[in-house]
Amino acid sequence: MTPDEFRRHGHEMIDWIADYLGDIDERPIQARVDPGDVRAALPEHPPTAPEPFDAVMADVDRVILPGITNWQHPRWFAYFPANNSFPSILGELMSAGLGVQGMSWVTSPACTELETLMLDWMQEMLGLPEHFRSTSEAGGGVLQGSASEATLVAILSARYRATRGSVNSDGDTSKLVAYTTSQSHSSIEKGLRIAGIGTEHIRVLPHDQNFAMQTDALADAIRADLVDGLIPFFVNSNHGTTSSLAFDPTAEIGPICREHGVWLHVDGAMAGIAALAPEFRWVNDGIEFADSYATNPHKWMGVNFDCTTYWTADRSSLLGALSILPEYLRSAAAEAGAVIDYRDWQVPLGRRFRALKLWFTIRTEGIEEFRRMIRGHVATAQQLAGWIADDDRFEIVAPHALNLVCLAVRDGDAATDALIDAGNASDAGHFTRTVLDGRSVLRISVGASTTSTDHVRTAWETLRSLA
Amino acid sequence: MTPDEFRRHGHEMIDWIADYLGDIDERPIQARVDPGDVRAALPEHPPTAPEPFDAVMADVDRVILPGITNWQHPRWFAYFPANNSFPSILGELMSAGLGVQGMSWVTSPACTELETLMLDWMQEMLGLPEHFRSTSEAGGGVLQGSASEATLVAILSARYRATRGSVNSDGDTSKLVAYTTSQSHSSIEKGLRIAGIGTEHIRVLPHDQNFAMQTDALADAIRADLVDGLIPFFVNSNHGTTSSLAFDPTAEIGPICREHGVWLHVDGAMAGIAALAPEFRWVNDGIEFADSYATNPHKWMGVNFDCTTYWTADRSSLLGALSILPEYLRSAAAEAGAVIDYRDWQVPLGRRFRALKLWFTIRTEGIEEFRRMIRGHVATAQQLAGWIADDDRFEIVAPHALNLVCLAVRDGDAATDALIDAGNASDAGHFTRTVLDGRSVLRISVGASTTSTDHVRTAWETLRSLA
Repeated sequence: MTPDEFRRHGHEMIDWIADYLGDIDERPIQARVDPGDVRAALPEHPPTAPEPFDAVMADVDRVILPGITNWQHPRWFAYFPANNSFPSILGELMSAGLGVQGMSWVTSPACTELETLMLDWMQEMLGLPEHFRSTSEAGGGVLQGSASEATLVAILSARYRATRGSVNSDGDTSKLVAYTTSQSHSSIEKGLRIAGIGTEHIRVLPHDQNFAMQTDALADAIRADLVDGLIPFFVNSNHGTTSSLAFDPTAEIGPICREHGVWLHVDGAMAGIAALAPEFRWVNDGIEFADSYATNPHKWMGVNFDCTTYWTADRSSLLGALSILPEYLRSAAAEAGAVIDYRDWQVPLGRRFRALKLWFTIRTEGIEEFRRMIRGHVATAQQLAGWIADDDRFEIVAPHALNLVCLAVRDGDAATDALIDAGNASDAGHFTRTVLDGRSVLRISVGASTTSTDHVRTAWETLRSLA
Repeated sequence: MTPDEFRRHGHEMIDWIADYLGDIDERPIQARVDPGDVRAALPEHPPTAPEPFDAVMADVDRVILPGITNWQHPRWFAYFPANNSFPSILGELMSAGLGVQGMSWVTSPACTELETLMLDWMQEMLGLPEHFRSTSEAGGGVLQGSASEATLVAILSARYRATRGSVNSDGDTSKLVAYTTSQSHSSIEKGLRIAGIGTEHIRVLPHDQNFAMQTDALADAIRADLVDGLIPFFVNSNHGTTSSLAFDPTAEIGPICREHGVWLHVDGAMAGIAALAPEFRWVNDGIEFADSYATNPHKWMGVNFDCTTYWTADRSSLLGALSILPEYLRSAAAEAGAVIDYRDWQVPLGRRFRALKLWFTIRTEGIEEFRRMIRGHVATAQQLAGWIADDDRFEIVAPHALNLVCLAVRDGDAATDALIDAGNASDAGHFTRTVLDGRSVLRISVGASTTSTDHVRTAWETLRSLA
């Protein structure tokens, strides 16, 4: 592709994206394809000669678009939102165009320094503790690709601290024990497993009727493990679970962790972004006790995936856990300690210039725009909860302080499951299922940038008529 | 940003990228900034009101561009290449615009199926074993974010197989031993460390004068560990090391691994792409023995980072190591076994539509264009080696069968180090240093898409004059 062709096809692509996002509500939300359909519509073998870009775009329209589920759809109530936005798309585009590597400061200083600044901006915008700031004595922030990776980095930092670094040489994780509830994201168990902490050393603590951790049980479990000669090393506290947006009581969990020197990670993947609005800053309650914290601008803040903000109050454990310095990566600036080399803050070595999309989005959208959207989604979800409460065929089965409402049909699980399927088939919305205390649940997550109260009302009326 | 503003700024951004890449050779290669310069030139606090996009772009030109090291520069001889290309930039742009999640088949079927097809295309284009194909009985491929992540996934698969899955419950890695040479990439030690294999259980095997593993030593080490009641579980074989593009003898290593049931991972991160040209397919020698293999289209194939192709011949160990299925991720298609859920093939849960950039690039550039570039780089590197051999102040210190030449100044390490610094200061090229058997080495990696023989000749003449 020549530079001139790139200009032409690039302009077309920009317009294509504007058109796609502009009339997305006229598309079905979910792909209407069967397994294998997409592949069967494409050549089984690579082309031997170059093809014109227009031929590729024709296949996008013919094969790819019918085969995707439209996550940017205003009737998106499934999983959690994964919003993009125009400025973040341009930030991703610039990152691809520049094609620089940010593994070390020296490999592109602006990539590192803009990222550090963005983490400090976000610390301020979310009202997070000062000890997470890069300018603090022991803390700092970094962009991770996903909350899963942030969780793994937290676990590895905790493992390093609990073993005083000996795990790097002896690999001995045999005494380490982690604590969380069944409501935690799958990435907690996955991260622990990767780090050599098997299910036998994961204490799944009981939760209360609000799906929040019972802290007495945490204290008891830690004491019992200590008696058994084990080392409690990691507690995960959820600030907004995936199933029901439940909040663990970090303000109570924190002192228990402090007493026993246990690393406290707070997982605020989805809900943490609500703290952009001061009245929702309670989502961070107790976070001053956290050794690490993650939330996702790529969910509720319109910065296209991947963009997870991760902070730690203990960067020396992080660096101890992850830094390895071969000769070909040495630099004078790093040896002098004057710079951050973010490769030592993450699992991979290479890294894109992801800070650009956060910077573009914050500057051009502005904090008030984020607050407006968050407030709108929460208000709509509260209206929805009111409508649900008015129909006694349904039951709201979890607290709904933010933008997720979990409901069940009183007739039982089969009726709830059937309603989820019928709702999805109707295309009035895309809904996903979860299970809370053994019961089938229909989740309605209100979080797509373009979702209005009308979209939610229509979806709800459709569900009512289908029930 | 309104849709119309997006169109306008998007067109501008496309042109900006074309301009940036078009006159990149007029820029200095390395950033000319001191630690803290970039941050100091930007506001310390986030803006309270939205700013026009033009103001952001003005800051890009004022602050960001002078602060980056230009990895797409034709005089790039440092590290390894990390090429982008016009079609891959458009693929990344489309991925950001669509904003879909490919964690499961059902969350966007085309995202999964196009990726599977691209891995099969690449298997064919690179001449890799049929048992890596998705249509094979036990194997398959997946895109990873980086070779580091691919390595970690390989280690976790090996750990699962060696412990027959018990590591998932007991976390016991105490008997597992891994084998590689000192020439391996840092991600090998990092991945092993993450997986709970400390340095005490990593056997750093001796290499020969070509920096290739001594296989007698491997066989001896495995036998000694077995006598000690340990479990040899993972061997990493390098197909092109980072320091010198050395190749371990996989055809000899493979039978030893087979004999003892040890997982063999082949790391072809940079050099593996050379197999696109049939005459360089020797880079894969012995790969039929590999349980897993990774190479990076984001290095030498012009697909912008991140895009690592990873294959395994044993997907059941991969799935055993990484799959966790919470209620909110269940789907009928997955339960029926009819589809791939790539979240279980990687560390994170979320994933972008990365296959688009590979598809766009393969289709519009064509295999012959990749071959032409690879052949050109190799031929130029061989010319360079001839010029170096003609000047007896220099010594070539490693084999140079492909596109990397490693040299030292005969006057000693101080002279070599001084030459690297002087070369970088001259801006005739960007060069990085490594150490081979204790000796300082200047690496000249010829791999940027735009690098011509003239660029290399000029760089070499400058180095000669500086020596």
